[in-house]
Amino acid sequence: MSGAEEGDRVAEFTAFRKRMNERILAHDNQVVRRFFALDTQTYRDGALDVKTKELLGLVASLVLRCDDCVSYHVAECRAAGVTRDEMFEAFSVGLVVGGSIVIPHLRRAVDFLDRLEGGTGVDAPPHTHG
Amino acid sequence: MSGAEEGDRVAEFTAFRKRMNERILAHDNQVVRRFFALDTQTYRDGALDVKTKELLGLVASLVLRCDDCVSYHVAECRAAGVTRDEMFEAFSVGLVVGGSIVIPHLRRAVDFLDRLEGGTGVDAPPHTHG
Amino acid sequence: MSGAEEGDRVAEFTAFRKRMNERILAHDNQVVRRFFALDTQTYRDGALDVKTKELLGLVASLVLRCDDCVSYHVAECRAAGVTRDEMFEAFSVGLVVGGSIVIPHLRRAVDFLDRLEGGTGVDAPPHTHG
Amino acid sequence: MSGAEEGDRVAEFTAFRKRMNERILAHDNQVVRRFFALDTQTYRDGALDVKTKELLGLVASLVLRCDDCVSYHVAECRAAGVTRDEMFEAFSVGLVVGGSIVIPHLRRAVDFLDRLEGGTGVDAPPHTHG
Amino acid sequence: MSGAEEGDRVAEFTAFRKRMNERILAHDNQVVRRFFALDTQTYRDGALDVKTKELLGLVASLVLRCDDCVSYHVAECRAAGVTRDEMFEAFSVGLVVGGSIVIPHLRRAVDFLDRLEGGTGVDAPPHTHG
Amino acid sequence: MSGAEEGDRVAEFTAFRKRMNERILAHDNQVVRRFFALDTQTYRDGALDVKTKELLGLVASLVLRCDDCVSYHVAECRAAGVTRDEMFEAFSVGLVVGGSIVIPHLRRAVDFLDRLEGGTGVDAPPHTHG
Repeated sequence: MSGAEEGDRVAEFTAFRKRMNERILAHDNQVVRRFFALDTQTYRDGALDVKTKELLGLVASLVLRCDDCVSYHVAECRAAGVTRDEMFEAFSVGLVVGGSIVIPHLRRAVDFLDRLEGGTGVDAPPHTHG
Repeated sequence: MSGAEEGDRVAEFTAFRKRMNERILAHDNQVVRRFFALDTQTYRDGALDVKTKELLGLVASLVLRCDDCVSYHVAECRAAGVTRDEMFEAFSVGLVVGGSIVIPHLRRAVDFLDRLEGGTGVDAPPHTHG
Repeated sequence: MSGAEEGDRVAEFTAFRKRMNERILAHDNQVVRRFFALDTQTYRDGALDVKTKELLGLVASLVLRCDDCVSYHVAECRAAGVTRDEMFEAFSVGLVVGGSIVIPHLRRAVDFLDRLEGGTGVDAPPHTHG
Repeated sequence: MSGAEEGDRVAEFTAFRKRMNERILAHDNQVVRRFFALDTQTYRDGALDVKTKELLGLVASLVLRCDDCVSYHVAECRAAGVTRDEMFEAFSVGLVVGGSIVIPHLRRAVDFLDRLEGGTGVDAPPHTHG
Repeated sequence: MSGAEEGDRVAEFTAFRKRMNERILAHDNQVVRRFFALDTQTYRDGALDVKTKELLGLVASLVLRCDDCVSYHVAECRAAGVTRDEMFEAFSVGLVVGGSIVIPHLRRAVDFLDRLEGGTGVDAPPHTHG
Repeated sequence: MSGAEEGDRVAEFTAFRKRMNERILAHDNQVVRRFFALDTQTYRDGALDVKTKELLGLVASLVLRCDDCVSYHVAECRAAGVTRDEMFEAFSVGLVVGGSIVIPHLRRAVDFLDRLEGGTGVDAPPHTHG
């Protein structure tokens, strides 16, 4: 598969997330809107730095086995300066805590990371809800 | 995407569910068959009305993060007269109970609801197992 | 066991929840505090009434198999006027969606409901976080 | 702890399960009653024998991390002739599939098995819903 | 859909799994590598035979609702001589323990089994991680 | 409750874990033993430091809602120098990702942390399996 096609898959994922977030927030439901705002606030720099918090979000997503959330936090981690070695150590924690049931999600996480690193110039998305 | 294409995706989902339910029930396994019958019975009008029961099924599916089950109950809720405002309040309960890990499923739920409401004339399917 | 002892167990549960909520909210963490406020807001009367929302919270808690959350929503449902027949229909949805793994939690839910109805004069607690 | 006390803990577990199953089935809810009947039917001798089915129930309970269900199936497996070596191999599958999060439940499973084998003369309970 | 196309979907699944396992193991992370080795070791003949262990892996995957893991163990079970009747009895345990939320995964499991049996000559893959 | 009694509860938890780990490892099952060894290895200093890895283990345990695992990692985090502010930020990630269903476990986590900090001189246990 060419780099352009790989970039397209990351772009498609990002576009769907962006479009549906807008659809969801367009509806006048204050609990939903506040939850989305709180989600964004959660990963801001504080007593723990952004990098650590994104790693926490990544491992939480991995053991709960949500591919979209994992992809999102992989991109955020990379944007926060997490190296591939660090990413794999985070993966190892998720794998041991969550078991072999995590493996298919780990495959897709590494596939997504490979695409991100594939020289297609895809930037990590701004923080808009895992 | 055109309304016709959107309708196709809902139709494809419905067709696969119908075909595989038939395949499953064709096998002579009494426990499986009884479970399917019990599942249908669960959502019948009783002390709680159908609308309330479908909302219960929707939120249970959302916090357990099963896209097919969510789509199914979104369609059933709509057929039972649940308004978009009520649907979003049910979503908000699922989101707060289940956390941000629910968000990707919420996106797909709203996308499915949009397709259903997209003027493609797709009716909610008869109750045949989440 | 006497009614007084049964009341004690419900009271002990309520006291621990109240004490620890205060401990948690005493810490200056804005995300945690906002989450607790949002949780309270979720079950307020809106497009869906309080009774329906508490039933949604009950079934969500049952399929996610959290005894404390189930006990809490059983008490809230009862305070909102949910009858025993309606409670059991909500239980039946949780049981069929969540499977036999839910049964031990159903036992404790019915045990808690029995204690609440045991004439010990325990009122449902004010809404302070599942 | 004496053997008598250990037997008491197994007996207490069995008594609560029995008492609450009766309370649940006393309520006139046909879906709940049918689910309980179906649960019993599931583990009957068929294409797979009782021993294999109980092992399946044990591992399913272990990865879903339900202590009561695990205890129940440990007792049933033992009654069906599962040896300690076979039990530990089933545990190993549950541990590797489910991850380290299973370990606390594995501890309680082995503790329960030790109590059962502790010469206190506790028999496995009749099959009445995990 | 023709048998050739059906074979293609099974082949595509196998190829992605194989390629990503190689990508994952290419990274020098000893915990991840050891976990993969341990996963393979888990299903080897021992006190329980391979057929029983694969059935345990299948039901664990079903109640944890991981389609890739289910597909993998369906193929392994078939290679170990599990009949369709036995497979459905294992499915029935997973369905009753895990509830109706398992149904969409059951549909895909039966669909995958149908493809495997579709005369396309696809062999079960060697044991390389769920 | 006196500080001595609080220390007793932490000590009781530690003693049961230690005793059962020994019982489990006493059985000659190589997969189980290797899993326990791998679990210990996972949290060793590497590309990520021990403190970060323990925080990852804590949040993973919190979203998977395992009280024993949470208690264990709270003690380990504290031994690795995690401050109360940092602990609460990790809690906030777990709470937002995992939802209100996490709250009862958060209560017990904070209760456990309070006991640890209660001047009873309880040291964090050596790393022997969450």
